[in-house]
Amino acid sequence: MSDEIRINRGLKGVYFERSGVSHIDGAKGELSYRGYSIHDLATQSTFEEVAWLLIHGELPTKDELAAFTAKLVAARELPGAIHDVIRATASGHPMDVLTASVSALGALEPESRDRSEAGMLANGIRLTSQIPMIVAAHEAIRNGRKPVEPDPNLSHAANWLWMLKGEKPSDDAARLADVDFILHAEHGANASAFAARVVIGTEATLHAAFAAGLAALSGPAHGGAAEDVMRMVEEIGDASNAAAYVKAKRAAREPVTGFGHRVYRAEDPRARHMRDGVERLSKEMGQPRWYEILQAVVEAMKPYARHGLNVNVDFYSGVIYQLHGIPMDLYVPIFGIGRAPGWVIQCIEQQRRNILIRPLTLYDGPEMRDYTPIDQR
Amino acid sequence: MSDEIRINRGLKGVYFERSGVSHIDGAKGELSYRGYSIHDLATQSTFEEVAWLLIHGELPTKDELAAFTAKLVAARELPGAIHDVIRATASGHPMDVLTASVSALGALEPESRDRSEAGMLANGIRLTSQIPMIVAAHEAIRNGRKPVEPDPNLSHAANWLWMLKGEKPSDDAARLADVDFILHAEHGANASAFAARVVIGTEATLHAAFAAGLAALSGPAHGGAAEDVMRMVEEIGDASNAAAYVKAKRAAREPVTGFGHRVYRAEDPRARHMRDGVERLSKEMGQPRWYEILQAVVEAMKPYARHGLNVNVDFYSGVIYQLHGIPMDLYVPIFGIGRAPGWVIQCIEQQRRNILIRPLTLYDGPEMRDYTPIDQR
Repeated sequence: MSDEIRINRGLKGVYFERSGVSHIDGAKGELSYRGYSIHDLATQSTFEEVAWLLIHGELPTKDELAAFTAKLVAARELPGAIHDVIRATASGHPMDVLTASVSALGALEPESRDRSEAGMLANGIRLTSQIPMIVAAHEAIRNGRKPVEPDPNLSHAANWLWMLKGEKPSDDAARLADVDFILHAEHGANASAFAARVVIGTEATLHAAFAAGLAALSGPAHGGAAEDVMRMVEEIGDASNAAAYVKAKRAAREPVTGFGHRVYRAEDPRARHMRDGVERLSKEMGQPRWYEILQAVVEAMKPYARHGLNVNVDFYSGVIYQLHGIPMDLYVPIFGIGRAPGWVIQCIEQQRRNILIRPLTLYDGPEMRDYTPIDQR
Repeated sequence: MSDEIRINRGLKGVYFERSGVSHIDGAKGELSYRGYSIHDLATQSTFEEVAWLLIHGELPTKDELAAFTAKLVAARELPGAIHDVIRATASGHPMDVLTASVSALGALEPESRDRSEAGMLANGIRLTSQIPMIVAAHEAIRNGRKPVEPDPNLSHAANWLWMLKGEKPSDDAARLADVDFILHAEHGANASAFAARVVIGTEATLHAAFAAGLAALSGPAHGGAAEDVMRMVEEIGDASNAAAYVKAKRAAREPVTGFGHRVYRAEDPRARHMRDGVERLSKEMGQPRWYEILQAVVEAMKPYARHGLNVNVDFYSGVIYQLHGIPMDLYVPIFGIGRAPGWVIQCIEQQRRNILIRPLTLYDGPEMRDYTPIDQR
């Protein structure tokens, strides 16, 4: 070992643990959950099946999937006091309201303190079902409506849209939400999963870990990209303006939102499924403008692709939400709904061989000095 | 560089950033804030002065301290809706209620979204004053009492005891709380400050960072030691049982609570100030038993000191709280009250040269495999 202390800013390239949940090949632009390509899962699987796969490591049998789905459906209930918390904070940003509500759930549900693996799994299933309910209830309450009761006959994704809007979604809309959740379900030690693991490292509850995960996700540099892309698209206004917009951004050395990723050097493999969705939805709804703007931005960004600046998953998802009439400040909470199973299994993994996660900072402050009493200052 | 990938479990020994706030010499058992020994600060300073020192890097002049104290006093106000959140969750653990309330403050106070340095500092001052108010209001509400109004003529520590108990504390009790807060105000990149920095790394708000810090602090392996020590002391019951208790623990290879620390190999330098407090308070209150038990445990643990197993700060603090009649589940929140200024300045430091904190996990799951549709499983 050299005497010189190495500072790993942002912990870039530092491995802190092994994990068998997902694999990201940043150079090739590949993502797999438990050995299954994200492309197969996005086209052939469902969120419920992917959640089981992430948690248990194998694809479920029909019976396993039915039992798991029934558990998720049974967990669609919120203590009445959570509606009080939402009402008290209804004017706030949905991510803050969600974080407060998840911490409140931890306070209200005595089983939240069960840190056995079975207990954490049961808590994780409940949270997976409760998070979309909290987001939907907040949207209802802040618009003066009564929260919609969950429908046990609907899938996780369809029930979310039902509770959000109070009308049954089309099959296509439900499937697009399902794919969105699949694509967001897990992504290694990103800042939110990592924050959750740091909290489990202190032997805190899964609810505390989720609160930290949501807090991390609320940051624009993590979960906020979809919202930023939508703002950019609105600013550009028309596909013919895209090239000039990109040129100006590059000249000012400002980043173009929705491009680039800490891990991916090739195109984010999740992007293509969202792109297909935007293209289809734009045409169906007779609103091709958004898709045209996005594609014009991609075209204008092509010269920079060899520097690793490719579209990421959130480049397309914002426009999908927009076409569905979902308010912009719900884009990050939607990310959180999808990510729940990833946090559950990463927290369980952390707990299995738990250790306090406690790195160091290198002191660069003043040398030791004498204290001067205040009347001598 | 070697081809073998190194896994830094718990990020032990990994430096992720420089920091000029506090310096810990684990081998020598030394701690300083901004170059001032914790011993000088614990014996000559106040929490308000230490908070200023941590945030601004120098001891304040009389005028600076007066202005800062006035800001802390002016920030002693909670939106009424926070009492609604506390009422809705009052049956829960105070750390969960505190985390929910801080997230709720983020939702309710529009200025929480100001991430300029001046904005973060203003938010940090507010949170420093609001956190003890939340803990005291929760204690009042869960006992069917009305929250006590803050007293602008009292110091941070004395006002906290006043709001907690509804009676003016003795000078000695207020000074002991003051010293406790000074000792807990900052401690490098421990799990809670680190979790807060991870959240700031995503460009989230200071309130979100505090929620993550509190979530991490709620874990027994971080903030829960004082509570565990008190349970141990109650279990031992009498000083004459301490040697047998320690022997049995060591034989079973179980840790003895309140000993050992990730960073300190010598005695935690904060411990002596709490020890002096316990000794004095035990005598004054005619309850020498607790102090005798603690000292008998220390005596029995002496053979293990050369393995780095020395008392840490929380070994003594629990008994002080107990002698003050503070419920056991408030011990961790008290830690959080003290730590607020440390989180404020570490978050500001992080923000000054911000970078996403995103380490890696090494994949050890299955190789790529083909997806099998569910009807073929």
